[in-house]
This record gives sequence, C-alpha cells and structure tokens, in this order.
Amino acid sequence: MRHEPFADEDLTRDAFLGGRLHIRQPRAGYRAGIDPVLLAAAIPARSGETALELGCGAAPALCCLGIRVPGLTLAGLELQPGYAHLARRNLAENALVGTILTGDVTDPPADLRAIAADHVLINPPYFEPGTRSPAPDPGREIALAGPAPLAAWIDTAARRLKPGGTCHVVLRAERLPEALAALAARLGSIEALPLLPRAGLAPRLVLLRARKGGRAAFRLHAGLVLHEGDSHARDGDDYAPAVSAVLRNAEALKFPA
Amino acid sequence: MRHEPFADEDLTRDAFLGGRLHIRQPRAGYRAGIDPVLLAAAIPARSGETALELGCGAAPALCCLGIRVPGLTLAGLELQPGYAHLARRNLAENALVGTILTGDVTDPPADLRAIAADHVLINPPYFEPGTRSPAPDPGREIALAGPAPLAAWIDTAARRLKPGGTCHVVLRAERLPEALAALAARLGSIEALPLLPRAGLAPRLVLLRARKGGRAAFRLHAGLVLHEGDSHARDGDDYAPAVSAVLRNAEALKFPA
Repeated sequence: MRHEPFADEDLTRDAFLGGRLHIRQPRAGYRAGIDPVLLAAAIPARSGETALELGCGAAPALCCLGIRVPGLTLAGLELQPGYAHLARRNLAENALVGTILTGDVTDPPADLRAIAADHVLINPPYFEPGTRSPAPDPGREIALAGPAPLAAWIDTAARRLKPGGTCHVVLRAERLPEALAALAARLGSIEALPLLPRAGLAPRLVLLRARKGGRAAFRLHAGLVLHEGDSHARDGDDYAPAVSAVLRNAEALKFPA
Repeated sequence: MRHEPFADEDLTRDAFLGGRLHIRQPRAGYRAGIDPVLLAAAIPARSGETALELGCGAAPALCCLGIRVPGLTLAGLELQPGYAHLARRNLAENALVGTILTGDVTDPPADLRAIAADHVLINPPYFEPGTRSPAPDPGREIALAGPAPLAAWIDTAARRLKPGGTCHVVLRAERLPEALAALAARLGSIEALPLLPRAGLAPRLVLLRARKGGRAAFRLHAGLVLHEGDSHARDGDDYAPAVSAVLRNAEALKFPA
C-alpha cells in the first residue's frame, strides 16, 4: 500500500495521445501501457455526462477520456493514497477538472455513493490474488492483483450507474469467464471485443462493455488487431490504423455495430 | 417430442466428409449444418478411447468422429426416440459400431451411468427456452431449444468423464457467458475457439474445450475464419483451407497450441 505522495525524482512524465496528454507515473510502480488508453477510447461519452473510474491509479484513463471528450464530469476512486494524489496532480497538470476519492471499491466512501454515473471505467488488477509471484513494489502489487474479486468491482459499478449507463472493463483474456459471470449478475447487453496482438494471435486483453438494465443477448465481436504485419521485429510504429488513430490522434474506439 | 421412427420418404440422405459418410436426417426436423462436423473434428480422440455425445440427434457428429478415428467406442444419448432410432441406423449404415441410449440428459438412464468417457461431445439446443418463437416441427423445436439448462448438460458430462477427459461444446456465441459459467463450475483448462464466418465478422458459433480436473487458465483463441474472401455472393466452395480439410477430407481441427 502506497500512502505517501511520490517524490518527483521517483516519477517519469510520459506523453500519451500524440502529446495531447502527459502523465506522471512512478518509475518503480504500476505503469500504464495502452490498456487504459484503449479503455478510455471505447467509452461512448458525451459532453455533460459523468464518468467514474474505479481503481483509477494515476488516472491515465480518466485523463485520456477528459482530453477526448470535453465537458465531462470526471471522478475516480483509488485505494492507495499515493496514487490518488498523483491522479489529482495529473488531472490538474492537464487542465482537467475531476474528483479523486480515496477508498476501497468493496467499501466505498460516502462521497462515492453520491455519484450517479453515465459511464463507469474499470482497468482492474490483472491477476487473481494468489495466482502468481508478487511484484517487488507493494504499490505495483496492489495494482496488479488487488484483494477484491472482480464481482465486487462490478457490483460497485452497477450501484453507481444510472439506468442505461455503460460499464467498460479492460482485462486479461484469461479472466473472461470470471468477468462475464460478474457482469451478467448485475448488468446486461454485454459485448466482448478481443484485442489481438496481431492477426491470428490469441488476444492478451479483452475489452468488455455492459449496460445497466440492458437486455440484449451477449455479443462476441471479431478481434481488434492491434499491430499490423507478422512480427514485432521491425522498426517504428506498426499499430493498425484504427489503433494508431486512438493512440496518436485521441480518436474514439468504436465497437462494431 | 418425436417418438415414432421416421419413414424413409420423410428423410434425406446427405453426404458428409467428402462422401466418406452419409447421414439420413428428417426433411422437416433438425438438420445438421457444419457445426457437428467441426465439433467432431476438434476431439483429440485416439483409437481405443470412448467418446460419448449428449443429445446426439441423428448422430452426425458421432459418425464423423467414428469415420476419422477408427477403433473408438462410440456412445450417444438422445431424448427423442425417433432421433435415437435414426442415430442407430446412421451408425449401422456407415459400418460404425456404437450404443445409442434414449433418455434425458438431466435424468440419465442407468446404462449411461455405466459409461466412463475419454471425450464428451455436446452440440446443445442452441437457444435458451422461451427466448424465441418455437419451430413448427416439435422434434426440431426440442433440438433447437431443449428444456434442460446448459449447466445440466455439463454436469452430466463431468460425471461421465474420466479424470483428464475432454468435453467439447459447440454453441452460439451469444451463449458464451452461460457456457463458461457452466464449464468453470465442473471442469477446468477451458479454451474457446470463435468460429468467424469471414475475417473481421463476429463469430456466430464458438467451439469450447474443457478438461476434467484441468487447472490451466482460461484461453481465448484468435478466431478460426470459416470462409475466405469478403462475401457469400460467389460461386463454389470458398471454405478456408483448414476448414475445407475438415469438411471434405475428414481431417482433424486442431486448436492453437
């Protein structure tokens, strides 16, 4: 658990969205990849709506969303005070207005219960507790394998969502059964978009969408291919055009119709 | 419910596996597509093993498996006596030896409880009861939307499997959440192979594999593309080579390593 704020010398400042956004994140702690960027790009949010991220960390996803869709009310919940502090700093340094609450997703603070969200984002700890060797950095370990089961995250999301509101989750493909069970118990109209490293390779991540009160049948989409070509052994940026548009131009990531 | 045997004039006789197999099936009842053929092709069965199909209908999958892998002990359970009779006839007419039992998957006959299977195949009713308009033919209706929930099918499969035995299920992609929950409750090492009509199109069907006593993490594979090219509006057989090898040459359908 990281209680104290990070010192500047323990942070890096990294560009996202083609330089539209800069995020400070700990050198030794949990560091954002493309996962929160793709998660934020998938939210069909419109100006005036409220977006809440559970377990926001240093808030790269919330910041990506705020940059792409101006006029949102942004809110985040983060267990570790050191990361919550960093999230507030990242919002402010990118001229974004948002509220970051410190607290546990399984026992949310009273302030969280006051939020009615149009959209909830979740980039949960990626591993089930106890299924792997812990990371040496304790803050990174909580970000990778937090103690709360996914069902508790989805339950809190469902409670905070307005009727018809969306919940988006990005997580490792191996947790799909657990995630679908948790989503089906509290939400509906579930869609899964596998993220394939390359055409023909198994997805490492899946992006999930569900809707509060939704009644449509589950939909499994064809995979979104992240990289073009056959191998990583080449120079330069080989992201597929739709992915590059998200990562470099802050465009939306549209689910198939 | 179809109790009486079908009359010959109510049946067609259709070629499968490039003419290696001929299956009689009712003109007006449930008719096999490529689903049971792909299901049978995915079973990693070896001569001397026992394969059991739950809800075998006219037994196209069992027959496909028996043709591809000689020396198997084949068994099937079918609710509707008229279809069970047809399954026995199809096995015999293709020079295959097997036992077809008549009974309900949720209350299996004593003879079924004597079977210890290396492999269980399930091509379950495709729709959840009550979610669609019934088919006009009552036998076809039971084949499309049988009364037993998928969990009951998987439970019976798990009871009949030897330790380490495999269970394979082909079903509509929209039932994936229900299927994963049912498989995770009784089996392990679950793998899902989406079957895409064409590259970039959402899978209509998913092929699932699980293992009794398996402990590996869930794996979602990249989709298997069934048809080449962009559209069905062309002449001839445009199956992808790996699929054509299954359908025309009775080859195995290998899951990715």
